[in-house]
Amino acid sequence: MAVNFFTKQSLIKVVFLGMISVVLLGTGNVAQHLFDAFEKSKHIQVKQVLGRSLKALDYFKEHTEISDNFDTILTADVYIVAISDDAINTVNQLLKNIDSLIVHTSGSVSIDQLNFKRTGVFYPLQTLSKGHRINFREVPICIEAKNGEDLELLHQIGSEISNKVLEVSSEQRLSLHVAAVLVNNFTNHLYHMANLICNEQKVPFSILEPLILETSAKISELSPYEAQTGPAKRSDNKTMQAHISLLQNPLHKEIYELISTSIKHTYGEKL
Amino acid sequence: MAVNFFTKQSLIKVVFLGMISVVLLGTGNVAQHLFDAFEKSKHIQVKQVLGRSLKALDYFKEHTEISDNFDTILTADVYIVAISDDAINTVNQLLKNIDSLIVHTSGSVSIDQLNFKRTGVFYPLQTLSKGHRINFREVPICIEAKNGEDLELLHQIGSEISNKVLEVSSEQRLSLHVAAVLVNNFTNHLYHMANLICNEQKVPFSILEPLILETSAKISELSPYEAQTGPAKRSDNKTMQAHISLLQNPLHKEIYELISTSIKHTYGEKL
Repeated sequence: MAVNFFTKQSLIKVVFLGMISVVLLGTGNVAQHLFDAFEKSKHIQVKQVLGRSLKALDYFKEHTEISDNFDTILTADVYIVAISDDAINTVNQLLKNIDSLIVHTSGSVSIDQLNFKRTGVFYPLQTLSKGHRINFREVPICIEAKNGEDLELLHQIGSEISNKVLEVSSEQRLSLHVAAVLVNNFTNHLYHMANLICNEQKVPFSILEPLILETSAKISELSPYEAQTGPAKRSDNKTMQAHISLLQNPLHKEIYELISTSIKHTYGEKL
Repeated sequence: MAVNFFTKQSLIKVVFLGMISVVLLGTGNVAQHLFDAFEKSKHIQVKQVLGRSLKALDYFKEHTEISDNFDTILTADVYIVAISDDAINTVNQLLKNIDSLIVHTSGSVSIDQLNFKRTGVFYPLQTLSKGHRINFREVPICIEAKNGEDLELLHQIGSEISNKVLEVSSEQRLSLHVAAVLVNNFTNHLYHMANLICNEQKVPFSILEPLILETSAKISELSPYEAQTGPAKRSDNKTMQAHISLLQNPLHKEIYELISTSIKHTYGEKL
């Protein structure tokens, strides 16, 4: 399939014939962040938020209709399903009478899990935590749809809240999700391991903050391949052994050895 | 030993009786960044830079004395040895006639590797790349010395170039070096793995940049333990299996499995 990155936006003249109405299904982090972003747009109206728990719907109730009864679902141009991956197939039953476009927001679920005539995906590639605000205009939104008009509609919606809307296939999206796990979930676990070391040595974890920020900032100037430094890259086995013997947790020792091996392999040492 | 973090600076009234003179040994990244930082200070004079290669000394020659002959070494208050870890013990011979304070800049070498009467450590905890400028005032500098007066002298020098000068023992420093490898070297390797995935899927790596920056920025608000998300944390084995089957490199598959196991273990799942 053809892929256009960061280009469509400038090529397509977005013509709004009116408001785009949206119904949100779900009340979690993604639903809340999307809702907040949509609230800032003049061309998107979130008509209703549906969820199983009235308590979780509290967040939205002063700004739009809420309901925990799926029989009361309103008519809208687009239905955005922002619920856990495992539950996405439940909407096939719940929304069976809906003719509008129905999209999910998951990184790892195929578009084919939605059994409707008009389906799509609207995946924000970012780590979204409750209570932690982000600039949504910088969040890449990966869109996919079964037909061109729906893709165009998703592009319009995406462009209302973000500067980075990309057409991405289900296969590409799953790969991006793996990449996101590496650079977010796994990186954060390395931070956690470092935090344990600092606690043990009674050194404040904040001492590592400049290094952590610089490591992430560097990728805008250098590829990670070029930016790599450290004992594994220069095959400094003496330092690596000293480091491994300092780590207490056997799993953490294994992680140190395995990533070091992978770095050495990347820079040419035969396994 | 007593440890004071971020406090000494405000407690000690720094009294300069004059310039502090410094001779730098080494011409690599650390030497260059330290030199540039010292150049901005009115109270530190780098009298000379010594190195084995005249070509590498080029960087300094317009601003100070340079020499590749250790017999021409000048007298100074402090000698800062910024050379590779393996070579640090060679200075025991080269500087044997020096009575001033001699310090190295390594994260992983003990203070006891320097066989002089007055020794110390001056370790900047940051990733320093040639040609990539950083704000040195934000770089934590870990200092250590055998006697109190020398520690005070290192504190004065450190405070001239950084807002964060910390007294850190050799044991603490080695632990911090392990932590630095985790959050810098290993994190960068995860970025590299993600970059390979993007290349394969013909998706620009820059799409991950907002996620990478947000992951590192989050630690100022949340501990890594609190910030953790993702399939491993919620023991979503289906997604993890889909991810592992997408990774091509056997080492990368192993890394995915091992870090996921460690995350699951962190959040209570028995091994």
